Amino acid sequence: MSKLRVPPLAPPLRVVLVEPEIPPNTGSIARTCAATQSALHLIEPLGFRIDDRSVKRAGIDYWHLVDLHVHASFDAFEAAHPEARIHLLSANGTKSLFDAELRAGDAFVFGRESVGLPNSLCERFSASMWSLPTSGGVRSLNLSNAVSVVVFEALRQAGGLRSPCLVADPQEK
Amino acid sequence: MSKLRVPPLAPPLRVVLVEPEIPPNTGSIARTCAATQSALHLIEPLGFRIDDRSVKRAGIDYWHLVDLHVHASFDAFEAAHPEARIHLLSANGTKSLFDAELRAGDAFVFGRESVGLPNSLCERFSASMWSLPTSGGVRSLNLSNAVSVVVFEALRQAGGLRSPCLVADPQEK
Repeated sequence: MSKLRVPPLAPPLRVVLVEPEIPPNTGSIARTCAATQSALHLIEPLGFRIDDRSVKRAGIDYWHLVDLHVHASFDAFEAAHPEARIHLLSANGTKSLFDAELRAGDAFVFGRESVGLPNSLCERFSASMWSLPTSGGVRSLNLSNAVSVVVFEALRQAGGLRSPCLVADPQEK
Repeated sequence: MSKLRVPPLAPPLRVVLVEPEIPPNTGSIARTCAATQSALHLIEPLGFRIDDRSVKRAGIDYWHLVDLHVHASFDAFEAAHPEARIHLLSANGTKSLFDAELRAGDAFVFGRESVGLPNSLCERFSASMWSLPTSGGVRSLNLSNAVSVVVFEALRQAGGLRSPCLVADPQEK
């Protein structure tokens, strides 16, 4: 069996989760990041453990395939990646992500499942705070679903979905 | 607080889950459907119960906001919606969803988490079987993430994300 593959984006997209709380969400996001070769940055404190045993017990696949970085603070992430353009994603954003101009290497920052992003970040990056527009009476999408939509829209805009080709699946037995 | 809203697509998109197995996936997909006013069609047998008590116990929000239909078979879905254009989504699809032409009212059919779509459907609809292209060594995305990416790409192509506007959030206290 073959799989439809695209070359990885260079530089890769960066997904930044600020103080994520729910392990299956982060696990599912890790799978999306591994599938798209996007880097995953977790900002502490985390609401769960990410040692090998805990990850295995939580039934999270693909963790070992993720380009994972853990930072003590958002400032530490910024210091390590000063070249990354920062986009905040928030259910309270006043502009649509689909009207943003997204590029390879961009960083997409998501807040806690319960309370979203800290006010300090929303104030600093108010010019690049985006939302996924919806039509129904729902507060927001599930966090991992929102991340996946954002990652694929960024890939699409950055040309990362062009020229897919079928390649043999190395995992196939 | 205001929310960024778009008018609902007419006719709405249709998300079709063939014999879904994992309750939190269907719950998360229901939330995406409610948020985008897409209809959700479940093809039996289901791997879980969807009565009010079971849904509540599973911690699934927004279920009451979903335009939900349950069908005894895929044939029953087709008989009820003969006008819907059928797209299959499969990790084994040989064409990119981003190269498809998607319209309002289209139906997007997803298989079981464990084994995907039945061969009979793949053979019948081989001309409209799509995949989300990936670059990393991952078999597939999480089902609810894949559904969300597909729904937003279909909304985008069908014009359903144009002209977002800020409206007062009726859920805000």
